Parts: sequence; structure tokens; C-alpha cells
Amino acid sequence: MPVGTQATVKALTPGDLRDAGAQMILANTYHLNLRPTAERIARLGGLHAFMGWDGPILTDSGGFQVFSLADLRRVDEDGVTFTSHLDGSSQRLTPERAMEIQALLGSDVAMAFDELVDPGLPRGEVAAAMERTHRWASRSLAARGGSDQAVFGIVQGGVDPELRRESVAAIAGLPFDGIAIGGLSVGESKAEMAATLSVVADALGSDARPRYLMGVGSPADFFTAVEHGVDLFDCVLPTRVARTGQVWTDAGRVNLRNTVLQDDPGPIDASCSCEACRNHSRAYLAHLFRARELLAYRLASVHNVTWTLELMRRLRASLADGSFGALRELVSAAFARPAEVRSDRAR
Amino acid sequence: MPVGTQATVKALTPGDLRDAGAQMILANTYHLNLRPTAERIARLGGLHAFMGWDGPILTDSGGFQVFSLADLRRVDEDGVTFTSHLDGSSQRLTPERAMEIQALLGSDVAMAFDELVDPGLPRGEVAAAMERTHRWASRSLAARGGSDQAVFGIVQGGVDPELRRESVAAIAGLPFDGIAIGGLSVGESKAEMAATLSVVADALGSDARPRYLMGVGSPADFFTAVEHGVDLFDCVLPTRVARTGQVWTDAGRVNLRNTVLQDDPGPIDASCSCEACRNHSRAYLAHLFRARELLAYRLASVHNVTWTLELMRRLRASLADGSFGALRELVSAAFARPAEVRSDRAR
Repeated sequence: MPVGTQATVKALTPGDLRDAGAQMILANTYHLNLRPTAERIARLGGLHAFMGWDGPILTDSGGFQVFSLADLRRVDEDGVTFTSHLDGSSQRLTPERAMEIQALLGSDVAMAFDELVDPGLPRGEVAAAMERTHRWASRSLAARGGSDQAVFGIVQGGVDPELRRESVAAIAGLPFDGIAIGGLSVGESKAEMAATLSVVADALGSDARPRYLMGVGSPADFFTAVEHGVDLFDCVLPTRVARTGQVWTDAGRVNLRNTVLQDDPGPIDASCSCEACRNHSRAYLAHLFRARELLAYRLASVHNVTWTLELMRRLRASLADGSFGALRELVSAAFARPAEVRSDRAR
Repeated sequence: MPVGTQATVKALTPGDLRDAGAQMILANTYHLNLRPTAERIARLGGLHAFMGWDGPILTDSGGFQVFSLADLRRVDEDGVTFTSHLDGSSQRLTPERAMEIQALLGSDVAMAFDELVDPGLPRGEVAAAMERTHRWASRSLAARGGSDQAVFGIVQGGVDPELRRESVAAIAGLPFDGIAIGGLSVGESKAEMAATLSVVADALGSDARPRYLMGVGSPADFFTAVEHGVDLFDCVLPTRVARTGQVWTDAGRVNLRNTVLQDDPGPIDASCSCEACRNHSRAYLAHLFRARELLAYRLASVHNVTWTLELMRRLRASLADGSFGALRELVSAAFARPAEVRSDRAR
């Protein structure tokens, strides 16, 4: 799922997303409730009408954004009080309010409200947050807007195998429509992430509900996660790195600010069918980034979203035809190298 | 002609421009020669290939940008020495170099190199710059790249009727492919602009070459100019004001940052067929501008370019069916009002 934090995948129209092959997108409860507010979006016909996207939308519950606020939040058993990053006003989210906001937004999939903590905290604190997440999961389900909206529960428990198993038992034991794996890609190592995904996969066993790994990931991460049964992803990386000039290709990361690209008449990736690769050269994009032209951010974003969704299609196909290992090898090797160093200062 | 200063009409792709009905665009010699340089664009196949636009391109000669540099330029009989706004380096433009750059860019229409001055300067200075413009016009023609590239001469002379007549005689007496009217929309009054256009039209008489009014204008200005025989325009206004949230409609200017629009489910302009009006509400655009989302600048630009080109089509049709006066009345009345005041501080 491309990420449309503020009811827009940055720089792209709904038409661009369809052209890129997007099937479903994500939007953010925290951001949209602060501005323009869930009530306003509801008055305007809901999030699909508001942003002009008629495909499925998943809304996160705000748990991750509140976690990101660090010192600006205070958690109690009932919910979280936090300070708006926009105007400093005091705001409150509870499981009930998070579900109410998502019902107002009218997303197709709502997420239960969870408490995310740094997996490096003492085990007791990770466990306490996990247990609260389980109580909030039940309250989220009780507050769901109606059967039109699917609700996914979120497994927490940091990188502790026992806690993760306990969390899977609690969350999978509730009548959620899907199971999300939260609390990863927040500072743990790649090995810890893989080990945790393995524990969760074993604990879920043959549970047939869709599995969603939140906030992951990089191209290599997709393979690790799919290997452990994950179906659904969201990540801001493709669009965020695009706006800095980093594009993803079969040969790995390419930095469009790289000096040598100023004279490169070829496309970002010859095998890519996106608008940027069909119509424009690396040289043109290198110029647009240097000139800080708005079109630079748009074309690089179109490419990264298209390439990433195409990678997911190839990944699905590789599972069917047995080439998963070979594709993983190719992508992992390409992305193991650091991005080409920005060298335009050399001239 | 939408303006693609740095080989991009800001925020828009060539496909957007075609959808908006653009037939021809403008690009800037001054900017492109500083970055990425004319030689680099030539190596990459010329400006059409570089920016992916296969329609006609007119390049200005750099005269206007050099004029804008004010204290950073020094004019002599041979040309102009100026300081790059990018890196402070000393740069030189002469009629011969301006034509060479435009030949390297490979534009369809090149402009002669001219000396533009503030029309409020003493008559002697305006006359001296005009006379130099005439000498540079001959040198520009002598230096033209070949018959594949049309060259337009530029009439100067400030707002002085006698100087304008003298300039028309000099420029129209040379074998240019078209006649441009320069030195307007640089601080003179609307009445002075109209009077000057009238003088130029009378002096050109039945001259059949295309007439191009440079750097104009606002919707109301188009009518004044067309009344005086102008065929071709370029102006950054539609895209520049769009990026501030000002959109143009049949009801005049609308400021998308206006508080009341946050709840307006209607399109920018119900009669407009652009992507923004087809797919998005004023409320959504008001949100995007508040959130400083890149999509805001793109959608507002798509609308203003589409609306402006559609206005030109309606204007041409009105000449054929006799409704020019009525259309002018409608547009002038709508645009006589100031833009809706930005009132979002009220909440």
C-alpha cells in the first residue's frame, strides 16, 4: 500500500496510483483528524470521495504517530493524551475515539488502537504495553463502526519471542478480519526482525486471515516478510526517498543527484513502464533535481511506487513458479550496496 | 504558451500540457544556458528530446532575464555581461551567442537578442536601448542557425508612440518570421499598454506575420491585446499564481486558501474539464494547500493552464461569431474584483 498520510500519496494523483498498479492505499488517522478533521471528511462524503480514490483504503489507528511524538504524549489505561504537532493543542485518542474517527473517514479497513513501545525497553515495559494493546484490541472491536468496515488487530511484544507468542494468541483469538504485525522497523536489527516474523508465523500457524506487516519496508525486507507469510505492506520509503532523488531499480538504488547522470540519456530503469521511464531520461531528472523543480519529486515518486508495486507482482509470481530464491538473491544483492554517493560537489 | 523556464512547466508533465490543450510552449535561454547548459542539452538531442515535449517550442533570447538582474548586468554595444544568479560567475550574452544557444537548444522559434529598459527612464535612454535593439536584431538575423528555426524580431521603444513607430519600421523591415512586442508589462499602466499596442498595430498595418506579445498577461489583458491584433502570448502568471493557491475561473479569481472553501464540495470551476475539476473538490484542494502537499501546486497549475488555454479558444471562437465584446465584458468584470482575501487566520 502506498502511503497517503494526509489523504494524498505525496505528489501523485489517484490516476497515477492506478497507473502504477496500486490496489489499496493507506491513510493516517492521526494526521487527518488534526487536519482537516474526521468530521469534515465525513461531511464531504468520506475519505474515498474526499481524495478521489475509489479503491480500498486502510487507515491506521494513530498508534504509531502517537508513539513517534515521544515526549509529547502521555499514556494511561484509557488512552493517550498528546500535543498536536500543528498547533500545540492538547489532543486525546482512545480505542473508541480511534474507531470513531476511522468510521467517519469511511476506510475499508480500520486498525485497532495499539500501544507501541521501543523494543529496547526493559521486558516489563514491553510486556505492559503489549497487555494494554490486548485490552485496547477488545475495546476497538467493541467500538467498531459496523460490518461494512473490516478491522485488523495488531500483534505487539517487541522482539521477545515469548511475548510475541502471547500476543498472537491474544489477538488471533479475537474476531478480527486480519492480523497486523506492529512494533517492527522501529530500531531493531534485521536479524531481530526476521526472527520475530518467524515466531509470529509459527504462532499464527494456518490462520487464514490476511497478515499485514506495518511500516515495512525496503525491497529486501519484503522477501524476508513474504517468506514468513506476510500478505500486505505499507511503507513511506518509496515516496520519501524519491523526494531526495533516490530511485529504486533492478540494479539497486540510484541517486539522481549524481553528477555523472547529468549526461545519461537512458531512463531510470529500462525495464520499467512508468511515466518517468517511458518519457524522460536520467539526465533530465538530474537537471530537475538540481533546479529543485516540482516535477522532479513527482516523476521520482511515480517511478518508485511503480517499481515497488511491480516488484510485489514479480514476487507473487515467483512464489508460483518457484523462482522466489533467485529473485530474492538478485534484489538483495542490488540493494546491499549503499546508494551511489552524491558526488555533485566534485565539479 | 505556458512557460517552461527551466525546461519544465512547473509541476506539469508534457502529457498534462497536451491534455490542457497546449499547442506551443516557451523555454528560457538565460536559465537553460546556466543550467544544465545549452551544450549539454544539444548533446542530449536538443530541448524537445530533453524535456519530452514534441510540440513547438519558442525560446526567448535572455534579454528579459538579463534586464531583471538590474545591478548585476553591464550593457555595452557588443552585448551584456552579467552575474549568474546561481553561482555568481560572470557570464556574457551577445546577439551571436544568444542565437548560438537557441540553435543548440533546437527550438522552433528563436527570439532576437534585445535590450529592454524601464519605460519610465528618460526618453533618450529608452531611444538608445531601442536603437541598440535594432542593431542587435540585424546581428541576430545574421547569426541565425539555419532556416529550420524561425526567428522573431522584437519591437521596443517603451511607451513612447514615436519610438514605437520607429521600432516597428526598423524591425518589420527585417526578414524576421514573426514580430514580437517587447517592453510591456514591466510597470507601465494598463492604459499605456493599450495605447502602445494600438500604436504598434497601426504601424504594422497589414503585415501578415504572427504577432507575439511577450510576458503578458492576465485574462483581461488578452482581450486588449487580441483587439490590437496579437496572436501569441506567454506568461508565467497562470502557474505562478496557482502555486500560491489562486485559481482562475469564469467567476474570477478564487483563493483556495480561503477558509470557507474547506467545506465546499464543488469543483474549482464546474465548466472546466481539467483533472483537478473532474476529480477533486475545492475542499480537497483547500486541505492540500493547508497541508503544503505537492499535489496542491500540481492540481492548481493543471487547472490554471487548462482554463487559460480554454479561454484563448473561446476568445478565438468569439472573433468568428461576433461575441468578442460579450466575452470580454464577462471576463473583465470577473477579474476586476480583487482575489478573495485569504481569511484562514480568522479561525
